[in-house]
Amino acid sequence: MTQAASQAPLEAPSKERLRLWLQLLKTTRAIESQLRENLRREFNTTLPRFDVMAALSRFDDGLKMSEISGALRVSNGNVTGIVDRLAEDGLLVRVSVPGDRRAHRVRMTQKGREEFARQAAAHEAWISEFLGQFDAAEARAIAAEFNIEESADAS
Amino acid sequence: MTQAASQAPLEAPSKERLRLWLQLLKTTRAIESQLRENLRREFNTTLPRFDVMAALSRFDDGLKMSEISGALRVSNGNVTGIVDRLAEDGLLVRVSVPGDRRAHRVRMTQKGREEFARQAAAHEAWISEFLGQFDAAEARAIAAEFNIEESADAS
Repeated sequence: MTQAASQAPLEAPSKERLRLWLQLLKTTRAIESQLRENLRREFNTTLPRFDVMAALSRFDDGLKMSEISGALRVSNGNVTGIVDRLAEDGLLVRVSVPGDRRAHRVRMTQKGREEFARQAAAHEAWISEFLGQFDAAEARAIAAEFNIEESADAS
Repeated sequence: MTQAASQAPLEAPSKERLRLWLQLLKTTRAIESQLRENLRREFNTTLPRFDVMAALSRFDDGLKMSEISGALRVSNGNVTGIVDRLAEDGLLVRVSVPGDRRAHRVRMTQKGREEFARQAAAHEAWISEFLGQFDAAEARAIAAEFNIEESADAS
């Protein structure tokens, strides 16, 4: 906590929570902006492309297009275009679903897995730097406090 | 902190920070989504409209269009359209700048100030409910921890 923050008299809870909210918005937007810049500079890729790869990386059997959309943290609607470009780059492939000629699944290639492993390691290191003011225990504790659903389940 | 969170062994700081980051994204997006819904239902308005009004509310003399864009937390480029609609609703007016026939400032009307006061009070109450797990001191402390610039200045 800063000296300034600890010395100023506390305002009503609703005012302090409103300031926390505005600070959270500022922080998440600054980090996202820096992530976009780093992904572009280091990997010539974008945050939506990274997010699609991250979703696919968790499923060895691949995902349907609708499942990719559902797994994305930004639903920008253009999953088809992103998947097309990643396929052109050889990072993923579309595979047909046995017994359903109209359905396809999307799966990472070996090249895609290797490329995403590099991107994910860099992404984790960047985030660790951006949030470097929190040690492991603090990061865990604050994440748990924001996780209302889990807190409710555990109480 | 939840029981589950406190009992599981801590992972490397970079892993815990990455989880904190994903939790922050989830929390801010869930709150923004609820804000959009509440603004629509209670005030028949949108988050960008609210943001423009919030920016104008801090300047009795009004703002230039470029200053409104700079003050918005979401720069969605369509400030002109938003201002047009708010003017049609009688919530703000364009006023000319003495000595510069091409320049305009945008200023809230009395009706706009009264409407925004209602919206801002509701907004603060909603945020206070969404972040109700933090008392005033916790909200202050966590906001200060996220405010890296201020922390650096104060150290």
